[in-house]
Amino acid sequence: MSAPKKVVLAYSGGLDTSIILKWLQTEYGCEVVTFTADLGQGEELDPARKKAEMLGIKPENIYIEDVREEFVRDFVFPMFRGNALYEGEYLLGTSIARPLISKRLVEIAAETGADAVAHGATGKGNDQVRFELAAYALNPDIKVIAPWREWDLSSRTKLIEFAEQHQIPIAKDKRGEAPFSVDANLLHTSSEGKVLEDPAEQAPDYVYQRTVNPEDAPDTPEIITVGFEKGDAVSINGEAMSPATILTALNEYGRKHGIGRLDFVENRFVGMKSRGIYETPGGTILLQAHRGIEQITLDSGAGHLKDSIMPRYAELIYNGFWYSPEREMLQALIDKSQEHVTGTVTLKLYKGSVFVVARDSEHSLYSEAHVTFEEDAGAYNQEDAAGFIQLNALRLKLLAARDRRLKK
Amino acid sequence: MSAPKKVVLAYSGGLDTSIILKWLQTEYGCEVVTFTADLGQGEELDPARKKAEMLGIKPENIYIEDVREEFVRDFVFPMFRGNALYEGEYLLGTSIARPLISKRLVEIAAETGADAVAHGATGKGNDQVRFELAAYALNPDIKVIAPWREWDLSSRTKLIEFAEQHQIPIAKDKRGEAPFSVDANLLHTSSEGKVLEDPAEQAPDYVYQRTVNPEDAPDTPEIITVGFEKGDAVSINGEAMSPATILTALNEYGRKHGIGRLDFVENRFVGMKSRGIYETPGGTILLQAHRGIEQITLDSGAGHLKDSIMPRYAELIYNGFWYSPEREMLQALIDKSQEHVTGTVTLKLYKGSVFVVARDSEHSLYSEAHVTFEEDAGAYNQEDAAGFIQLNALRLKLLAARDRRLKK
Amino acid sequence: MSAPKKVVLAYSGGLDTSIILKWLQTEYGCEVVTFTADLGQGEELDPARKKAEMLGIKPENIYIEDVREEFVRDFVFPMFRGNALYEGEYLLGTSIARPLISKRLVEIAAETGADAVAHGATGKGNDQVRFELAAYALNPDIKVIAPWREWDLSSRTKLIEFAEQHQIPIAKDKRGEAPFSVDANLLHTSSEGKVLEDPAEQAPDYVYQRTVNPEDAPDTPEIITVGFEKGDAVSINGEAMSPATILTALNEYGRKHGIGRLDFVENRFVGMKSRGIYETPGGTILLQAHRGIEQITLDSGAGHLKDSIMPRYAELIYNGFWYSPEREMLQALIDKSQEHVTGTVTLKLYKGSVFVVARDSEHSLYSEAHVTFEEDAGAYNQEDAAGFIQLNALRLKLLAARDRRLKK
Amino acid sequence: MSAPKKVVLAYSGGLDTSIILKWLQTEYGCEVVTFTADLGQGEELDPARKKAEMLGIKPENIYIEDVREEFVRDFVFPMFRGNALYEGEYLLGTSIARPLISKRLVEIAAETGADAVAHGATGKGNDQVRFELAAYALNPDIKVIAPWREWDLSSRTKLIEFAEQHQIPIAKDKRGEAPFSVDANLLHTSSEGKVLEDPAEQAPDYVYQRTVNPEDAPDTPEIITVGFEKGDAVSINGEAMSPATILTALNEYGRKHGIGRLDFVENRFVGMKSRGIYETPGGTILLQAHRGIEQITLDSGAGHLKDSIMPRYAELIYNGFWYSPEREMLQALIDKSQEHVTGTVTLKLYKGSVFVVARDSEHSLYSEAHVTFEEDAGAYNQEDAAGFIQLNALRLKLLAARDRRLKK
Repeated sequence: MSAPKKVVLAYSGGLDTSIILKWLQTEYGCEVVTFTADLGQGEELDPARKKAEMLGIKPENIYIEDVREEFVRDFVFPMFRGNALYEGEYLLGTSIARPLISKRLVEIAAETGADAVAHGATGKGNDQVRFELAAYALNPDIKVIAPWREWDLSSRTKLIEFAEQHQIPIAKDKRGEAPFSVDANLLHTSSEGKVLEDPAEQAPDYVYQRTVNPEDAPDTPEIITVGFEKGDAVSINGEAMSPATILTALNEYGRKHGIGRLDFVENRFVGMKSRGIYETPGGTILLQAHRGIEQITLDSGAGHLKDSIMPRYAELIYNGFWYSPEREMLQALIDKSQEHVTGTVTLKLYKGSVFVVARDSEHSLYSEAHVTFEEDAGAYNQEDAAGFIQLNALRLKLLAARDRRLKK
Repeated sequence: MSAPKKVVLAYSGGLDTSIILKWLQTEYGCEVVTFTADLGQGEELDPARKKAEMLGIKPENIYIEDVREEFVRDFVFPMFRGNALYEGEYLLGTSIARPLISKRLVEIAAETGADAVAHGATGKGNDQVRFELAAYALNPDIKVIAPWREWDLSSRTKLIEFAEQHQIPIAKDKRGEAPFSVDANLLHTSSEGKVLEDPAEQAPDYVYQRTVNPEDAPDTPEIITVGFEKGDAVSINGEAMSPATILTALNEYGRKHGIGRLDFVENRFVGMKSRGIYETPGGTILLQAHRGIEQITLDSGAGHLKDSIMPRYAELIYNGFWYSPEREMLQALIDKSQEHVTGTVTLKLYKGSVFVVARDSEHSLYSEAHVTFEEDAGAYNQEDAAGFIQLNALRLKLLAARDRRLKK
Repeated sequence: MSAPKKVVLAYSGGLDTSIILKWLQTEYGCEVVTFTADLGQGEELDPARKKAEMLGIKPENIYIEDVREEFVRDFVFPMFRGNALYEGEYLLGTSIARPLISKRLVEIAAETGADAVAHGATGKGNDQVRFELAAYALNPDIKVIAPWREWDLSSRTKLIEFAEQHQIPIAKDKRGEAPFSVDANLLHTSSEGKVLEDPAEQAPDYVYQRTVNPEDAPDTPEIITVGFEKGDAVSINGEAMSPATILTALNEYGRKHGIGRLDFVENRFVGMKSRGIYETPGGTILLQAHRGIEQITLDSGAGHLKDSIMPRYAELIYNGFWYSPEREMLQALIDKSQEHVTGTVTLKLYKGSVFVVARDSEHSLYSEAHVTFEEDAGAYNQEDAAGFIQLNALRLKLLAARDRRLKK
Repeated sequence: MSAPKKVVLAYSGGLDTSIILKWLQTEYGCEVVTFTADLGQGEELDPARKKAEMLGIKPENIYIEDVREEFVRDFVFPMFRGNALYEGEYLLGTSIARPLISKRLVEIAAETGADAVAHGATGKGNDQVRFELAAYALNPDIKVIAPWREWDLSSRTKLIEFAEQHQIPIAKDKRGEAPFSVDANLLHTSSEGKVLEDPAEQAPDYVYQRTVNPEDAPDTPEIITVGFEKGDAVSINGEAMSPATILTALNEYGRKHGIGRLDFVENRFVGMKSRGIYETPGGTILLQAHRGIEQITLDSGAGHLKDSIMPRYAELIYNGFWYSPEREMLQALIDKSQEHVTGTVTLKLYKGSVFVVARDSEHSLYSEAHVTFEEDAGAYNQEDAAGFIQLNALRLKLLAARDRRLKK
């Protein structure tokens, strides 16, 4: 790979990406464009602009964008249509944000004539894979620079030294090592590393940042309703809201009731196991709500097919293959199933739990006439069940007859 | 089907199966053998013996058995090795008990020279299918009698009349219609029908019988550990226990903390949707515990394969295909994966929730050396990630290059 | 089910459906509408009209239609996009025709005010299921009459007697029993029953009706090219053709070279095994051609996903679930994959075999630059493979290290 | 990676691996152990011993072994139980041989105290992955040396120069570049590269080395029978044979009749497409024979499950994950299904084709009594089909009713 001339950097404004910024300038002597996205991580973006300017980035090379609506509408919601859970538990909060960032990096590279993009993910994690697969899928000729895999700033001490050498301001609390590493966006906050590295040790309380401890949550349950149209949440308690507004509101409900905490050991795509603490307050409510509305609006054939492909769909997102033909094929399958996933779900929130307690829809496939214990006025002929069972049993009988025959 | 001469009836001792018993005698003039199993449903079995005798069953034709250990060891535990959930939520508590009952019915038929078995399941539900598929798979020539599909006792009034005509004692509270229908065993209690038939209406509190309301559960969390060997729970808080003893103990923990309640609309095999309230206190804890120990002891390839076949495995059990080649094939696959699923999981129980908070195992695949944010002493070479990403990206680059080429 | 008043009958004009026609009139006293479709079965339809008239059907109640283009365009081609094979071998020639017939039956019922449809499939086969599931999926209130399951004309003798009683003309060769039963359409001819019922006996030569014996096929191979656009065949040897025209032409190539014969024992949806002789001359060529063009135009992620869902897709079609949400979801997935399946395949036809010998496409993903054994000018960096292997191996190493550790 | 001290080399005795041998000695100054396996590639092994001795390998460091029986019994046959085809066509002839070679390399390393193994696969192909994943899975600490990824002998000229410098004898026909590259073993011969690199060009006839051209095959078909026990072939025409003997015999039948040729473009694990010519004469017959016996002995539930996991199983083998938990789990599933796959298949071989024409087994599940068009003496009750269809249709009716309701 020849040296990059102009690089678009995913820039948070924090110490680490500021060091990367400077390192790109000094190592490659290249022009740097910064891209700072508001994905709902809960930090102000203005300081990022000032810091970038201070580090010598030209104003026209500083991109700061609020992408929260796009994030929820085009990434989070499509994924939730699929009820995606990685390894049965993880709601993919980090995974789903990376493709959007890479997309903007590549687009900004095209706009600014940059030949490379750069990210601050390490060489041990999944995020490097997600950033880079997405970038290459969108521009096969883009260069991707991953400083953590290249440089020799292999300890905190060396990083701080580099920062001091290059007049990068260091917040007091960043001098020492953080007790764990955090990623946050509108969907979730993840924490991992350091104090969390022994999965046999309980995580300390201070790791949780986004939700109250269930024990400190209100003693009284709260009932809310979530409205859906074609698989996407569109309202809370009857009030229509935009995608990002809904997720923000659900996050607040979840935070308050201590919902969405997960202590998890997962398998990284790069081959090792890692332990993370995830907090996905709104997403956890959303998943249950979506499952609830599907219960009455989705046919069993459709639902079972969806369930069977879900692990693969979730794995693709986890592994960074959002922009792949197979993810898009599965999305087409999933989206096709959502045409009637419209209606209202009632949920009870209480001390870490979210319960579906009722669901209602004009699109419901639930037929009280068929299922009732009462007289059903001919809706269902119980005698049909005899034939149904006989033919389902036929092959089992033939198997049993064979076994008996061979035993003789 | 020619008329049965001798029938083994799955007999609970309750009003409904007593009516069936008498109906078999009067309708077919056949000898009846009763089989009453203690599956942990929480009812005494002695009254069943007395009632059967009173209804004219010969002592040698009355079978009453405690099958709790067999139930948990040979049915519940194998199923939990697979983390089986039907339609993402239901722990299959009813489904998994039916094959065992059918097995004993067929075995007792062979012992007593009976040519038929009978059950008390209706023509609208899944249980008829489960009873009958299991019976036919074990004896292809057995006759199965399902009185609910045959007789004309189509209303409560007619049933009571029949009982009175035949001197079947009727408990006072059984004269009227029950407000809902219940099935119970060591794994779960399910309730459905009547007051639960409108899924848009919240279930009344009195439906829940097996767990305290989370709101009434202790205000202080409880920490327990569950030990596993080769995928099966073997101890609680370090104390070794038999399978049924463990599930009984977990049920008590779950009951106390309001764990395992589920309000669910599911798709029955016979084609309609139904709404049920399930309480699976111990099973819900067990599932989380099993997932927790798998997190550190199961390889990702093994885990992802298990996850991908799970919906099919659960569907087979739900639909009544326990005794089918494909269920046994999936079981072989699952069991193969459990050889190292050994270790201890720590769980926090609190007001309806069960959280995995720590896991430990000599069989752990978690490598702190590899995952650490600290110096890893060469355990992992970050440069490998570059090649890993490049080759995973290659096809995506070729796709992107094609798209670009065709646009020109 | 109340008695039907007006019935649309799938009418071939042959003896069996003529008997059904008369039986409907006499048994139910209902008005009969006949629907006779040209699906490419190779029979003239005019005699069907005359015969229907002779049996008292009003001219406005006689529907005769050439649906060959619709059949290939909307049913055969979509299915071939999925490379569907039932149980690894069968090209689903009968299965795919049934939904189209049912669709027209239901549509004609709506046009003519009929409340029922009727078909001539027996109670042992798959076709009854396919006809009826399709009909119910399109009109949940339609009545379906399956005379073979209802009447008592259980022997050839009784059928002939009924025909004679009702002045139904009987061709000489129809008096005796046919040595086997045949179904044909533009995609295939199937033969089953009677002389074919012992799968340990070789099928007699005279069963094959649609293809020459490979031994009698030309001694010289023939080379053809098939052009594709978005997954569908559009030309042969450079000549553009309509869907039905292409399949007709491929059938002629296949017939001449003895291609597409299959002697097969399959599992019917209704539970038993049956043995059939299938001849699918054009379809067999088409499948190979489609696979050939996919080889260079379909990405591996897309292709492997398609391969993994294919058995389920084929089973749905075989079982009669063409009009089901899950078939449509899978179709959406499949169709999404075909956007670039465009190009030309060269095939060699010879004595029963069809070989792909070359493929070419502007949409090709094949990169000689990457794969070449020669210098590749940096297209591919072999060192990347080392990292790729290391990370793929990481979990295997951790497994091996655990095994070693535990052995000590 | 520290430098290896003693290396076990997969040594064919040919020019390329002789150069590798010498390069290991000169580059690393390490002791070399050679392993030469007779996998049925059809070459004498004695010259390999002489050549190794001539290149300075100590006699005790020369391992030459006939592993044909192990190869077929423990690798080929288990794979054929799964009917494995990669991307619908490829019988995995190269893929399945690599794990065995790696296993012996690692075992010999343990016996001889070697710390490394080496292979002659290039950095662009799948074989490097297969060799190395297998080696690491069996010994997590083994070093693997892949000279083609390391050295600078990047052209034929440089290789020949190196050989001449080191007195490695060069056969005349090896001086120039081979027109394509070949791999062979008892299961297949593959050819790729050079003249085959343009998939739009037909492969020249001289590429095929293992089978006669179908056009030159006998004009008369040949009928053979293959006997199976529990999924494995055990006899031909009634004569019992060992695994390798059977495959050898089937190869001869296949060769003679021009069976098993495949011109294929496949997706390599490392990300690019490649075109290969495969000849798998005996394996192609074996696959058809195995499918044939499964047709009558395998239940539909078992068969459909097998079909659904087959693509994944084949992909694992192709990608080099033979020694992985998930391959072993799938093998457990597959092997469980084969308990009754016992019987005899009759095949017709003719000019490139193999047809199953009859199958017979005491374990057959085929029931003429059930399937017959004749009177079936009550084996099957056609009325059962009505109930079977009604309940399968129920959800489709509910869907159709919803659609109608919403349209109003």
